[in-house]
Amino acid sequence: MRLDEIVARLGGELRGDGSVVVSQVGTLAGAGAGQIAFLANPKYRKQLATTGAAAVIVPPAAADDTALPRIVHPNSYAYYARVVALLNPPAQRPRGAHPSAVVHSPLPASASVGEHVVVGERVTIGEDVTLYPGVVVGDGVSIGDGSVLYPNVVVYRDCVIGARAVIQAGAVIGSDGFGFAKEGDRWLKIPQIGRVVIGDDVEVGANTSIDRGALDDTVIGNGVKLDNQIQIAHNVRIGDNAAMAGCVGVAGSTTIGARCTVGGAGMIIGHLELADDVHVSAGTMVTKSLARPGQYTSIFPLEAHDDWLHNAAQIKRLAKLAQRVAELEKKLEEMEKTN
Amino acid sequence: MRLDEIVARLGGELRGDGSVVVSQVGTLAGAGAGQIAFLANPKYRKQLATTGAAAVIVPPAAADDTALPRIVHPNSYAYYARVVALLNPPAQRPRGAHPSAVVHSPLPASASVGEHVVVGERVTIGEDVTLYPGVVVGDGVSIGDGSVLYPNVVVYRDCVIGARAVIQAGAVIGSDGFGFAKEGDRWLKIPQIGRVVIGDDVEVGANTSIDRGALDDTVIGNGVKLDNQIQIAHNVRIGDNAAMAGCVGVAGSTTIGARCTVGGAGMIIGHLELADDVHVSAGTMVTKSLARPGQYTSIFPLEAHDDWLHNAAQIKRLAKLAQRVAELEKKLEEMEKTN
Amino acid sequence: MRLDEIVARLGGELRGDGSVVVSQVGTLAGAGAGQIAFLANPKYRKQLATTGAAAVIVPPAAADDTALPRIVHPNSYAYYARVVALLNPPAQRPRGAHPSAVVHSPLPASASVGEHVVVGERVTIGEDVTLYPGVVVGDGVSIGDGSVLYPNVVVYRDCVIGARAVIQAGAVIGSDGFGFAKEGDRWLKIPQIGRVVIGDDVEVGANTSIDRGALDDTVIGNGVKLDNQIQIAHNVRIGDNAAMAGCVGVAGSTTIGARCTVGGAGMIIGHLELADDVHVSAGTMVTKSLARPGQYTSIFPLEAHDDWLHNAAQIKRLAKLAQRVAELEKKLEEMEKTN
Repeated sequence: MRLDEIVARLGGELRGDGSVVVSQVGTLAGAGAGQIAFLANPKYRKQLATTGAAAVIVPPAAADDTALPRIVHPNSYAYYARVVALLNPPAQRPRGAHPSAVVHSPLPASASVGEHVVVGERVTIGEDVTLYPGVVVGDGVSIGDGSVLYPNVVVYRDCVIGARAVIQAGAVIGSDGFGFAKEGDRWLKIPQIGRVVIGDDVEVGANTSIDRGALDDTVIGNGVKLDNQIQIAHNVRIGDNAAMAGCVGVAGSTTIGARCTVGGAGMIIGHLELADDVHVSAGTMVTKSLARPGQYTSIFPLEAHDDWLHNAAQIKRLAKLAQRVAELEKKLEEMEKTN
Repeated sequence: MRLDEIVARLGGELRGDGSVVVSQVGTLAGAGAGQIAFLANPKYRKQLATTGAAAVIVPPAAADDTALPRIVHPNSYAYYARVVALLNPPAQRPRGAHPSAVVHSPLPASASVGEHVVVGERVTIGEDVTLYPGVVVGDGVSIGDGSVLYPNVVVYRDCVIGARAVIQAGAVIGSDGFGFAKEGDRWLKIPQIGRVVIGDDVEVGANTSIDRGALDDTVIGNGVKLDNQIQIAHNVRIGDNAAMAGCVGVAGSTTIGARCTVGGAGMIIGHLELADDVHVSAGTMVTKSLARPGQYTSIFPLEAHDDWLHNAAQIKRLAKLAQRVAELEKKLEEMEKTN
Repeated sequence: MRLDEIVARLGGELRGDGSVVVSQVGTLAGAGAGQIAFLANPKYRKQLATTGAAAVIVPPAAADDTALPRIVHPNSYAYYARVVALLNPPAQRPRGAHPSAVVHSPLPASASVGEHVVVGERVTIGEDVTLYPGVVVGDGVSIGDGSVLYPNVVVYRDCVIGARAVIQAGAVIGSDGFGFAKEGDRWLKIPQIGRVVIGDDVEVGANTSIDRGALDDTVIGNGVKLDNQIQIAHNVRIGDNAAMAGCVGVAGSTTIGARCTVGGAGMIIGHLELADDVHVSAGTMVTKSLARPGQYTSIFPLEAHDDWLHNAAQIKRLAKLAQRVAELEKKLEEMEKTN
């Protein structure tokens, strides 16, 4: 695709030869002939001088750093995302249902239902929905227009998925919440009768699980992005455009505000409220509600094992150490008085 | 269902109008007409005065807090669980095997085998077992009466699942344990010839995995409840009625006592023994055997990131700090002597 | 199998009666008649005197500790692995494709393709590959000779898996990396056009996920062993013969050297470089690049909850405590001068 065609479609300011043709996107360091690279992180600015790319996408501040044909755009990273999408249209699956699929509900003609998919009764499938092989959609489920469910995704009965969802392989939506009442030594299962309700433009990662609510619903807001291996417990509510990296866990009935982010393996215990714009660092355990935006952290600093041994040993004596310091202060004060 | 019918079935003491009809359970705050709410946590006791519920389930201590028709029961939470089950019977799947299922073993007439299920050879399926679409049951497996396996569950060859199991979607039972012998730089696989043996009344969460034993079996006791995204390694033994929240990991050959609980993302290293009634806090790493019941914790306290930076920086100097305090104590003692 | 047959096949030095027949391997403590046990960990050496095994595998140092027929080998653990493999040949799945499989590419006659498997277009399947029921192989994938994919594994389009791979059930290879550009409040998806390229002799655990690269590939070296519930993000590179235990997470674009090991639930943030032979302890969070081999740790020590409460409370005052100690030191120094 010619540079001037890209700019015609996606906007931005063209500088240099607009007739240059690019067929793929690459990094500044790796791109070669026929490829367009991008500068988003100022750290890589020097690579503009040496890149083998045929053209580049740059922010205004770096517009004059190169003589290459270039597209200047204030959000060069988002622009890069759009160019990747333009040059790499998603694989088109055949329309209609594969003969091996078992479909108990009507489908729009635009839907693509792959091999061995199972669609239950009273299911609503939107336009241009793609169900990859092995997907299982329970009774009463609703899936919005343009959503893509990758192989072996499971959606339990009555759950709702909005438009343009991307659900990666092996994800489970609507499994029973972990609800049990103690009766003597035994655990008595509490049937989970809520649903999972997912907004529009949500992505759910591979092998992530989202439990249905106990009585009320588990709710995932619009534009939420969840990475792989995440666990969302029953009755969690996640605000619009929040994002969570891999291996995160959110325990039951916790509410997370809009635009929050949680780093990899961050964990949030149950029945908490996180305000909008709270950012939880990777590996951090959130044990209390957070009413103010900001970044929060709780990780033990990394050390070579032997150094760790020495320092960690002191943790168990920390309360005593604090006491000893207080006693020293007292004694010293008395000595000063005496002198 | 009328209140007096519920009491006739489930026991408890009826107070007020037993002819009131309820069709669903709700929270005190959310319940409306035709719904029965419950008080389990004393924290919500005030909501009894304002609830819109048609009836309530209360413990004896709160029996006089409301004029609503009510059921009084000492374990109001367990009673609530039973009422939810009564009013929400599980979805009934059709009996018999769907034509798309491939079944290599005899099935009882009461079993329900869904679309695209695969049942291997020499498999024993109990009465009233439900296999949802996409379940794969390996050769020689045994599944007890009344068990339910949700979509895309995989049970490897020769594993044993007891009666009334509930296995959520995507769970894997009996994958190879992580056993390798080092040979020079390379890892030599040790075939895993043990099984997974699961007792009665066990729940296994979505996308949880339980590895088969190396030589002996991995054993999950009766009444054990495992949440989603859990990893149980080879030769782990979990005692009766233990419960583990989401994202927990238990490494190889560890034995966990009866009634133990592990909070979300708790991790237990290998070759340990945890006594009965040990409770591991969320996010806690168990690095040694625990011979006494009680609660154990190992998490770094949460702070705003900047505060964390200041305090965490000291961790690396903690051994030195302790030394400096010891030196101060010594000096002060000497000064006191001198004075 | 007779002991002398085993030695003829696997090497090692036979002592005692080579005509003894063993049919299975057991632990020193558990083995009975017809079983061969092994001593690898010196801790169990005393059990040699009391084992009920018919024969044992021992290292040279313990060769004289028993009068039982025995095989002496310097790496008794690896020898044990080989004997287990010899006595427990892997289950042989039928050759050819089951009629319920949907296969869009040519297969070698030696391949075994199970029930409800889906193989896409332009797929290359090597000799003696086994695809268990429910496996989904995307278009353009390549799988090397002798690889085994257990039930419901998903391999996305264009990924490459080397020879002799073992992929446990529910694993997902090639899901989209977690790449989004921020645009105002919203996240814009960056199509992930790299692949996952896996070397030879790799094992991937149950429900583990490996994301495809954003522009370049995610690369798993030869001989790498990954346990269950692991998350490997886009553009991660893992060196040959590295091994990771369950629940590990590696964030995007991190490079991990050869022979590295990561203990259970270890987490490594993005854009780091770990040298060869780095060993990360269980539960450890790696937050910076590690240029030197060695073991690294970052875990909060475990305590009974009440003790933890006391000590953890001090963490938040640690910077102040250090300051107070510094002030004490200063004061004391001044007093010493004055005196």
